[in-house]
Amino acid sequence: MSKVKVSIIGATGYVGAELVRGFLGHPEVEFQYLTSRSFEGQLFSDIYPVFRGVCDIRLTDTPYETVAKESDLVVTALPHGVSSKTVPVLLENGARVIDHSGDFRYKDVNTYENSYKLVHPDPELLKEAVYGIPEFYREDLKNARLVANPGCYPTCSLIALAPFLKAGLIDTGSIIIDAVSGVSGAGRKESLPYSFCEMQENFKPYGVVGHRHTTEIEEQASFLAGEKVRLSFTPHLAPFKRGMLNTIYARPSAKFTDVSDEKINAIYKEYYKDEYFVRALDMKVLPEIKAVNGSNFIEVNGVFDKETNLIKLFSAQDNLGKGAALQAVQAFNAMFGFDEKTGLNIVRGV
Amino acid sequence: MSKVKVSIIGATGYVGAELVRGFLGHPEVEFQYLTSRSFEGQLFSDIYPVFRGVCDIRLTDTPYETVAKESDLVVTALPHGVSSKTVPVLLENGARVIDHSGDFRYKDVNTYENSYKLVHPDPELLKEAVYGIPEFYREDLKNARLVANPGCYPTCSLIALAPFLKAGLIDTGSIIIDAVSGVSGAGRKESLPYSFCEMQENFKPYGVVGHRHTTEIEEQASFLAGEKVRLSFTPHLAPFKRGMLNTIYARPSAKFTDVSDEKINAIYKEYYKDEYFVRALDMKVLPEIKAVNGSNFIEVNGVFDKETNLIKLFSAQDNLGKGAALQAVQAFNAMFGFDEKTGLNIVRGV
Amino acid sequence: MSKVKVSIIGATGYVGAELVRGFLGHPEVEFQYLTSRSFEGQLFSDIYPVFRGVCDIRLTDTPYETVAKESDLVVTALPHGVSSKTVPVLLENGARVIDHSGDFRYKDVNTYENSYKLVHPDPELLKEAVYGIPEFYREDLKNARLVANPGCYPTCSLIALAPFLKAGLIDTGSIIIDAVSGVSGAGRKESLPYSFCEMQENFKPYGVVGHRHTTEIEEQASFLAGEKVRLSFTPHLAPFKRGMLNTIYARPSAKFTDVSDEKINAIYKEYYKDEYFVRALDMKVLPEIKAVNGSNFIEVNGVFDKETNLIKLFSAQDNLGKGAALQAVQAFNAMFGFDEKTGLNIVRGV
Amino acid sequence: MSKVKVSIIGATGYVGAELVRGFLGHPEVEFQYLTSRSFEGQLFSDIYPVFRGVCDIRLTDTPYETVAKESDLVVTALPHGVSSKTVPVLLENGARVIDHSGDFRYKDVNTYENSYKLVHPDPELLKEAVYGIPEFYREDLKNARLVANPGCYPTCSLIALAPFLKAGLIDTGSIIIDAVSGVSGAGRKESLPYSFCEMQENFKPYGVVGHRHTTEIEEQASFLAGEKVRLSFTPHLAPFKRGMLNTIYARPSAKFTDVSDEKINAIYKEYYKDEYFVRALDMKVLPEIKAVNGSNFIEVNGVFDKETNLIKLFSAQDNLGKGAALQAVQAFNAMFGFDEKTGLNIVRGV
Repeated sequence: MSKVKVSIIGATGYVGAELVRGFLGHPEVEFQYLTSRSFEGQLFSDIYPVFRGVCDIRLTDTPYETVAKESDLVVTALPHGVSSKTVPVLLENGARVIDHSGDFRYKDVNTYENSYKLVHPDPELLKEAVYGIPEFYREDLKNARLVANPGCYPTCSLIALAPFLKAGLIDTGSIIIDAVSGVSGAGRKESLPYSFCEMQENFKPYGVVGHRHTTEIEEQASFLAGEKVRLSFTPHLAPFKRGMLNTIYARPSAKFTDVSDEKINAIYKEYYKDEYFVRALDMKVLPEIKAVNGSNFIEVNGVFDKETNLIKLFSAQDNLGKGAALQAVQAFNAMFGFDEKTGLNIVRGV
Repeated sequence: MSKVKVSIIGATGYVGAELVRGFLGHPEVEFQYLTSRSFEGQLFSDIYPVFRGVCDIRLTDTPYETVAKESDLVVTALPHGVSSKTVPVLLENGARVIDHSGDFRYKDVNTYENSYKLVHPDPELLKEAVYGIPEFYREDLKNARLVANPGCYPTCSLIALAPFLKAGLIDTGSIIIDAVSGVSGAGRKESLPYSFCEMQENFKPYGVVGHRHTTEIEEQASFLAGEKVRLSFTPHLAPFKRGMLNTIYARPSAKFTDVSDEKINAIYKEYYKDEYFVRALDMKVLPEIKAVNGSNFIEVNGVFDKETNLIKLFSAQDNLGKGAALQAVQAFNAMFGFDEKTGLNIVRGV
Repeated sequence: MSKVKVSIIGATGYVGAELVRGFLGHPEVEFQYLTSRSFEGQLFSDIYPVFRGVCDIRLTDTPYETVAKESDLVVTALPHGVSSKTVPVLLENGARVIDHSGDFRYKDVNTYENSYKLVHPDPELLKEAVYGIPEFYREDLKNARLVANPGCYPTCSLIALAPFLKAGLIDTGSIIIDAVSGVSGAGRKESLPYSFCEMQENFKPYGVVGHRHTTEIEEQASFLAGEKVRLSFTPHLAPFKRGMLNTIYARPSAKFTDVSDEKINAIYKEYYKDEYFVRALDMKVLPEIKAVNGSNFIEVNGVFDKETNLIKLFSAQDNLGKGAALQAVQAFNAMFGFDEKTGLNIVRGV
Repeated sequence: MSKVKVSIIGATGYVGAELVRGFLGHPEVEFQYLTSRSFEGQLFSDIYPVFRGVCDIRLTDTPYETVAKESDLVVTALPHGVSSKTVPVLLENGARVIDHSGDFRYKDVNTYENSYKLVHPDPELLKEAVYGIPEFYREDLKNARLVANPGCYPTCSLIALAPFLKAGLIDTGSIIIDAVSGVSGAGRKESLPYSFCEMQENFKPYGVVGHRHTTEIEEQASFLAGEKVRLSFTPHLAPFKRGMLNTIYARPSAKFTDVSDEKINAIYKEYYKDEYFVRALDMKVLPEIKAVNGSNFIEVNGVFDKETNLIKLFSAQDNLGKGAALQAVQAFNAMFGFDEKTGLNIVRGV
């Protein structure tokens, strides 16, 4: 059987590079185009020397129509506002698409437009787009033409919250998400705040009110809860390249009468018992980014602070892995009928 | 006028070393003894080569009685349970003492004993001990014989919370402290989890329920609030050597009707207007550890998330600076009648 | 066809863990035993949580005889002096062996004994052991019972030097190797000098005269040159986890009359033109550790400083990859008749 | 007595910021102007928040004539080619000057012009300029109008080489300098290669032939040796913010008949016995950057590899400290008649 032809538009950002790494290890995929406006004509491995000899494909600036016509799947790693104009062209030309921007992640176009301060040029597509967390939308992914790969913070938050929202076990008005990301989340760019000398031995909050991922988390959390959820989200930047850790605080709902460490742990174990990429850790073992970096795994666990009647949930993932590119590979597997683990048995080691 | 004779017991841990750095720059201080059981006979600069030529004092294991008799101030950097037995000896022999353990930080001996799982050998001293945050207990420090230097997390939390607790502006049942510390907080020790290869590119929560600093923060927060405060505290370990950042979540109290970013900022500016070491930052400027490392400064600011009715407070300090040794120098200044800034005009630069 | 049964003795050090990562990705390998004295009974993934769900094999302390009898290949990651006693037992019980210590890397037992201050219990085996750089000893590896996997510094040095030594183009009395290693080279251990707070923002030379790898490099360099080579080697420790960069200085020999950047580059390109894992970089592109980390690749290039008549050669590899465990996988492929690249298409990405 | 009025031109780069830190701690200095074209009108502490409350001087773009007329000393932290035009203006207007560029470091204008590919607009000043290593040119500094503060690599190299060059103990044709610098050496700038994600876990050589500091080292080394010296210099970039370590290789001269570790050590001890800022370390103790960071100290030591007849010298300094700004403060002390240590009792601690 011939392999699935995959193209990546915007292959030279950090997400693009991790998409290359991810799909490269997939036995049923071959690359059709890796495109880049800035680096057209160079080899992918000129930009990322770690791929020398491993992926020396030449970057092109092929017209999107051509890319779409000659590919089974096009993965877009473009800025928001650009994706919303590019993706329709790709779909019209027959490709299935996984998009990495915020442009197709919302069902409610108003929330999108308020969050991104943009008018959406193609709101009809929002209805069709599938939010790309396979653990939640596996069935929809099978026939999806358009998948909106979630933001890194939303994936990390929603996987941690889902079992409790779904079962109505937490007070949805009480959710506080405290999140920490590595510097690669800011992308590959020349920018003083992300320079080595400014970030080494530093740590700081940013975007502390109104970060766009807040509304993305809220919309999906509302679907899980079956009611409108408003929550608080506060991101921080930490001096490591890759990784993300969320600490989530919430009050148990009236319904959750027997809350305890054991119970929280058991809920996670049960909810994710068939999910390979979600590690519901054992009692007293807490997520840490070292344990997930370089992989598509996400770890969750939680405790109950009975003195203050507060549930604390923890989740850790690689922001470029389960938080972006490797989750796209997982979604691809769901879309094209492969075992979701295919090509994703990768870890970093020490 | 002769200089104040200062001795440090346990001078070779990271807190001890920072005490040396702090007092070394003080124009009115001379060292009497730097003691160490493990490194007795070696030079201080053999242990910390950065002090070669700067502080080549020989470490001794001088009996505590002698140390106390020949010093005006003895600073103890000893483990809890050891301090509680050592400090009385020092006091009896005529020295004033600043202690860095948890042993004299509590007024309620039961809270101490429950938190530390120890029987306190000298609970009477708890009454006398002054909790060493000069911004709160300046007057008491003047004549204090015994100062309990606060924990790093408590200092960082309490400075951020004080204006709001004092004025009854936050719901004391709603306080959630999410804290991040550098690795030096774990001390100078041979321990795999704190090795370079285990912490580089890592980030993790620890002690997520029942960390001892919780009760220390609660007791002082209760004094500030004038009512019993129970709060939630969750520490994390991050891959930098020095620094601490707290993100604190709380609901405004019924009384706080006009809560806004501007109001929160104005409250900080007013409350700390005479405090040199507390930087109430300008609107939209957030604390970051880079800005305080190597100094005795602590930065605070806050915002209001009106969508979720949540106040978010941020504070950053150097865990070994304002969080430990340099705050001890500040307290020393208050104790001995010097300008609190004396010797503390130190910053790290880039 | 049934898979090759591989066991790893000493699987929980950093080299052991990278061996697990390497062989895990090999389609023709299955693990028989992962042994550990210290962690017997635990899961491998308890020690290395990044392997949770990926390699949850239980660690055993199986007798070496049993391990050998039930395995086609046993890989030993044991200290020198221990390997020399263990390997004979494994061989006697029918396994082929790849050893990671210094115990079987020398042909001259005197050099070994002087370097390691040990009496070799089984010097006959030195004759049989194949030095495990496939680029040099590919043919010998095919039928090897015992492979001595080289040290990280020797691999990095010898790959860089080989084309010039072989062709007699450098003055063998002039070779100076300046080497820099990441902290994982020191192994997984509780040790203050390798703690995060001691190594972050540090850099230092160590073992500056008489480091054991000097004689190992010399012996192999002598084989390449066809004459006795004495050289100078100076290692340094740098604040990164993985990676190694060697800068090698040498004078051109009288024979090397047309020395130039172009010529040096052409020599590398030609010598390694069929070697997948040796990247002879293009003119003006220099090796860097970022480009090789997590992989079995090694990069080389060089320049000629005509002002001082000095050749400068550069080589970069992952100290745990081509410098240890992944080179063992490559050697395994050569031993068992697989394409040398099998299982080694792994890179770290960003 | 009134304080010395010091101005800094180009105060917002990393060298500028360290100059502020250095002079700020000097009891006999007051700042007249801190100038910046890019940040004119802002506070210095807006650019470097670590100076909030410590140095809140407003940055100006004052004409150089005014700056010079109103200052006793002007320190310039400007790019080469700009300094050469600015410094004459400052001198004409009556200020003494310490310049940080390469523009006044050479005595031979041809060497300068070949190294910097620039025509020097004022070569007469080269005769007058004093090369600002106080250990070498203390007497000349006393009355100097113009001091050329040396490059970081030259300082680190020359301090290590001086005792041996001066005494004719090494073969001047054999000198090889292998140098490693922290990222702050590249300056404060938006540049992808110096971003956190590109430098974390990286290490690489750069400028491996023809780096400008080569000729600067050579000219001064020639003065020390009393003969023309040609040497080889190879810099590397390492993942730490501050610090520099040089490893220098050289053959003993025919004259150096009794070379040994002890002898090398004794030579250093003797040569620098009166130099506070040069730490000639004890036998077997090697320089490391941790021991000098944040200070004006430089450490030296050496060994003899008798197997290869090679002397290995090691030196470590802070690239922004003794390698730049703090050495300028030391030179200032020499120029203005203060004890050279004044204001320089600063260390970083842990």
